[in-house]
Amino acid sequence: MISFESDYIAGAHPQVLKRLVETNLETLSGYGADRYCESAREKIRLACGLEDAQVEFLTGGTQTNEIVISTMLKDYEGVIAAATGHINVHEAGAIEYTGHKVIALPQELGKMKAADLKDYLETFYADETHEHMVFPGMVYISHPTEYGTLYTRQELEDIAAVCHTYHMTLFMDGARLGYGLMSRETDVTLQDIARICDVFYIGGTKVGALCGEAVVFTKGNRPEHFINSVKKRGALLAKGRLVGVQFDALFTDDLYSHIGSHAIEMAERLKELFRRKGYEFFLESPTNQQFVILKNRDLKRLKEQVVFSFWEKKDEEHTVVRFATSWSTTEEDLEALESIL
Amino acid sequence: MISFESDYIAGAHPQVLKRLVETNLETLSGYGADRYCESAREKIRLACGLEDAQVEFLTGGTQTNEIVISTMLKDYEGVIAAATGHINVHEAGAIEYTGHKVIALPQELGKMKAADLKDYLETFYADETHEHMVFPGMVYISHPTEYGTLYTRQELEDIAAVCHTYHMTLFMDGARLGYGLMSRETDVTLQDIARICDVFYIGGTKVGALCGEAVVFTKGNRPEHFINSVKKRGALLAKGRLVGVQFDALFTDDLYSHIGSHAIEMAERLKELFRRKGYEFFLESPTNQQFVILKNRDLKRLKEQVVFSFWEKKDEEHTVVRFATSWSTTEEDLEALESIL
Amino acid sequence: MISFESDYIAGAHPQVLKRLVETNLETLSGYGADRYCESAREKIRLACGLEDAQVEFLTGGTQTNEIVISTMLKDYEGVIAAATGHINVHEAGAIEYTGHKVIALPQELGKMKAADLKDYLETFYADETHEHMVFPGMVYISHPTEYGTLYTRQELEDIAAVCHTYHMTLFMDGARLGYGLMSRETDVTLQDIARICDVFYIGGTKVGALCGEAVVFTKGNRPEHFINSVKKRGALLAKGRLVGVQFDALFTDDLYSHIGSHAIEMAERLKELFRRKGYEFFLESPTNQQFVILKNRDLKRLKEQVVFSFWEKKDEEHTVVRFATSWSTTEEDLEALESIL
Amino acid sequence: MISFESDYIAGAHPQVLKRLVETNLETLSGYGADRYCESAREKIRLACGLEDAQVEFLTGGTQTNEIVISTMLKDYEGVIAAATGHINVHEAGAIEYTGHKVIALPQELGKMKAADLKDYLETFYADETHEHMVFPGMVYISHPTEYGTLYTRQELEDIAAVCHTYHMTLFMDGARLGYGLMSRETDVTLQDIARICDVFYIGGTKVGALCGEAVVFTKGNRPEHFINSVKKRGALLAKGRLVGVQFDALFTDDLYSHIGSHAIEMAERLKELFRRKGYEFFLESPTNQQFVILKNRDLKRLKEQVVFSFWEKKDEEHTVVRFATSWSTTEEDLEALESIL
Repeated sequence: MISFESDYIAGAHPQVLKRLVETNLETLSGYGADRYCESAREKIRLACGLEDAQVEFLTGGTQTNEIVISTMLKDYEGVIAAATGHINVHEAGAIEYTGHKVIALPQELGKMKAADLKDYLETFYADETHEHMVFPGMVYISHPTEYGTLYTRQELEDIAAVCHTYHMTLFMDGARLGYGLMSRETDVTLQDIARICDVFYIGGTKVGALCGEAVVFTKGNRPEHFINSVKKRGALLAKGRLVGVQFDALFTDDLYSHIGSHAIEMAERLKELFRRKGYEFFLESPTNQQFVILKNRDLKRLKEQVVFSFWEKKDEEHTVVRFATSWSTTEEDLEALESIL
Repeated sequence: MISFESDYIAGAHPQVLKRLVETNLETLSGYGADRYCESAREKIRLACGLEDAQVEFLTGGTQTNEIVISTMLKDYEGVIAAATGHINVHEAGAIEYTGHKVIALPQELGKMKAADLKDYLETFYADETHEHMVFPGMVYISHPTEYGTLYTRQELEDIAAVCHTYHMTLFMDGARLGYGLMSRETDVTLQDIARICDVFYIGGTKVGALCGEAVVFTKGNRPEHFINSVKKRGALLAKGRLVGVQFDALFTDDLYSHIGSHAIEMAERLKELFRRKGYEFFLESPTNQQFVILKNRDLKRLKEQVVFSFWEKKDEEHTVVRFATSWSTTEEDLEALESIL
Repeated sequence: MISFESDYIAGAHPQVLKRLVETNLETLSGYGADRYCESAREKIRLACGLEDAQVEFLTGGTQTNEIVISTMLKDYEGVIAAATGHINVHEAGAIEYTGHKVIALPQELGKMKAADLKDYLETFYADETHEHMVFPGMVYISHPTEYGTLYTRQELEDIAAVCHTYHMTLFMDGARLGYGLMSRETDVTLQDIARICDVFYIGGTKVGALCGEAVVFTKGNRPEHFINSVKKRGALLAKGRLVGVQFDALFTDDLYSHIGSHAIEMAERLKELFRRKGYEFFLESPTNQQFVILKNRDLKRLKEQVVFSFWEKKDEEHTVVRFATSWSTTEEDLEALESIL
Repeated sequence: MISFESDYIAGAHPQVLKRLVETNLETLSGYGADRYCESAREKIRLACGLEDAQVEFLTGGTQTNEIVISTMLKDYEGVIAAATGHINVHEAGAIEYTGHKVIALPQELGKMKAADLKDYLETFYADETHEHMVFPGMVYISHPTEYGTLYTRQELEDIAAVCHTYHMTLFMDGARLGYGLMSRETDVTLQDIARICDVFYIGGTKVGALCGEAVVFTKGNRPEHFINSVKKRGALLAKGRLVGVQFDALFTDDLYSHIGSHAIEMAERLKELFRRKGYEFFLESPTNQQFVILKNRDLKRLKEQVVFSFWEKKDEEHTVVRFATSWSTTEEDLEALESIL
């Protein structure tokens, strides 16, 4: 059965897997100190246009959010996120597990607005009781968001400006960054992100790797003894090469961009296809996740032939579902989908 | 200068203090194992009409919330509260510090509605991804709320019904319970609360004690080795008598009710006074906290002669402020206020 | 029945209680911002000979240890203590609850030796794998120790020197500091402690207060937004005056020293009394806790007439028990004990 | 340069990698719900002789220890380990990070003795103050231990008997279990372990996988909503297949045993080789880690030609070093080592 269930339904991109096979018998030190980790770090620095960036590898998205946030916040601080932010909804309370509050702000299409952020901060500091409240220490945004939407460069700069006025760290969750960078409707480059954010991560798991995320600290702000804090949270891989080799492959010959482009191409065709057949979208997504509104009886029928994700109930008779593309989506998948629709 | 700043601006009610003085030289065991703690427990059980209730003493409100919530929730659970709930706003993230999320629901005048709660739970369990989300394990309500408002008995029963349908604990924060019980506009008795809630606390600090809250586990549901968990959170008093003697006094000769009645009487007069002078209220509060809307220039002038609390900005020209009464509020205070107004 | 069970069997020293009574009706702000807290802070600074010391009040010993340690350690650090240290044994894992390891070193009569500390640190840093281990960030010592023993000034300076070589904070738990300062066998003054330690606390609960400990940060090193971290751990008293007034009394007219002296005088007589009767001591304690070796059959008999604490089994036929004196111990108590023995 | 640095210096065993390649393009659900995870679970149950065992996959050893321990302990409990246990030394305080104490017992050659355990528990429960101490809730043992040594079946049963008398969980860290099972000097089978322990894990990372450990709950005692607790700790792989496929391969055609046998064979030859050359061992290890005593000047020279690990200083002139074998150790490695020695 064809599947658009998520962007992590297949294994690794063949180029990535090939490198794992080729390097498999090499003898390498553990814990991220091997030559492939080092090479991947260097390539990422280059791609970011930040020669002093500190790059660290972790295994998955929630883990990365948890570690970045809990090691960078101070004891009395929490992290601000859009109410729909992954850390506020789908991470089983991982941030709170580290002892820090997620402060939820209103969102629009999954995005936080600089004006709402500013408003929150002004109200907070004007409140005479704020010493008894959680101090806002960081802003978390996801790009693409959980709804597949993207910030414009100006929006990112506006949020960053507010962050810096209030001495807060700006952290971008880039679990699907590859799809954001290759969107046809973005003016944001990796170098923009590296310049604007204080810390962000380049997602691997959802963009062609078996697992792995690359955290980039852009301002020499990696927490001291970071590796120890990673270990303490159970997140230090003995065979650090597993992620290092994969990121080295992803940042060789522009593979990360190619993966992004392919998925975007597939998503645009899928969008076109649904549109042609008269379906409506829950929102306009410029990336690899497409949110389609289905009549409940169509949903049931479709489910027998295609795999996709339930997103949310729209009304009594309609449901929002998600179709995701990735490096592994093929033209044949789309053709099969077309004939089913 | 007269003060309506809060309900904890004076020391202990004289009757309470008297008992501390009278018992001071007695030799007693520590950690809550003394005869006054035992006597206070027995009197509270009697007042609650629950002979098997388990009663434990703690020092303050945030501490009590933190300990009750973190010892009763399971690892994968969070606590639901109204967005304005004390634990969600003014406890510096104390609940999150224990590793659990506060799930904020909409509120109306500080109160959570059973319908909103039910709606949240239905949506949660209908969501196919809920295994990746924080499970709702407890409902926290404050009574009186942070806005001085009260639940009706029916509202409490409706919330409890939803809780029990979804196997959740109902926890009432009674930091100001004395004022709620003695309100002229309540149909809720202490025995109702003891019957409806799974766990609640009877506030001492804000109702005549120097410090102290009495937690009542109504269903034999006190966590195992509770004293150890209390110690582990730095909350076990060596001289447990300090709180035991005070609660013994508060529950002797109906003192707790008298304190409540007096403060309510004072609050009603204060309300009347402001009304007579043409002031408006932010909301109708039937308890000891009154929220008055002041023009900013009046606020400035008033501040020079009376102490009260800033609550929130209403608009560019008006501010909401809080006047609180307590056992220590006197008729002279009200007369002085009147002449100032 | 006469009792030597602990140094917290009675209420407050009458002078302390008197001040609570006298100030009871005064209207004061909450959370430690009142004039008595301020006055007590100033008197403590003066007694310490440190005009810039930052003084904060907390409620009990475990709470103080937990808060000082967890707010001063970095994420990757733990605290070193003697194996018999209170934080390692009798605090229900309160330090670990904050996410930090207690690293136990060998002890002698409850004391840590600078040489053992140095040895541990040299081994730690020489270990090539130490990046995977808990970094030692603080040294915790208690003075008097859990065995009533005392460090000499030279011993304290030696430990401090090691701490500073390795960039570690030296923290002294002074739960019973009053008895240490007034011991007949000490060369350590409060000013010495204030000079040598980075942070320490002056115990109130066990030295005449109903509750309360005064933390002294000696080097401008109080953690930022400390009050918020205290609140977050459920330890911020609404009526901060409760502890402020007590410490103000304890540091007025040398009361803290008088309480210490009296208990030491009583302990010395008690020691003499036991010695005269032919009893042996588990160790030589120069403070208010005396550890007597009893034959098991004597223990049983004595228990019927005097209250004291079981300490540990010595061998099949002997048990170590503890007799503690305090401000509330009277000559009559000693006479009664003598006639019983 | 030849390397005996650790058992995780190479990638995956070729059979394991082959399966990752073969299954790479298959479309599979995430989070461990795929058919390979299910197949691996079934094969592990069969190998354990426990058809109802619950098997869950995690990524690494520290992570597994942290999750098993923190989800199985109650709030007031800690975990007992030999002082040299991995959780007590080389996990950066990961257990304490979850709020639980590691209670260290004496060890001999890395092993805990049932008698010491029993003695600890008797003393604990005889101590009248134990309600203020961390309750022992679990025993952690590693097999093989950090020193390569093994428990006999009788020793395991003795420890289990003590555990069960005191209502404690017995947890075995099997990071290197494959080498223990294939040792020439063991009478312990996988089925014995599954019968004796309440929970244990079968190490993958150090026994031929790129990453991955398989936790086996032997008594229907997997914590409720375990997947949520795993997610909350940042440990849930989106592509759960990564570990599932690997364990499926490891438990196909006895591969796990073959890997173990090969490494043991290599270790025995290495041992023989060192012995023949007159070297002494720090202790007798029957598994894949061998601890050799080197003169410091030999160490320096050897280091230029072979990679191995520093273990500890023995005396001024000697150092203990570790040589580890694994599936990737070849006869050529041993020959090269021989000619170097």
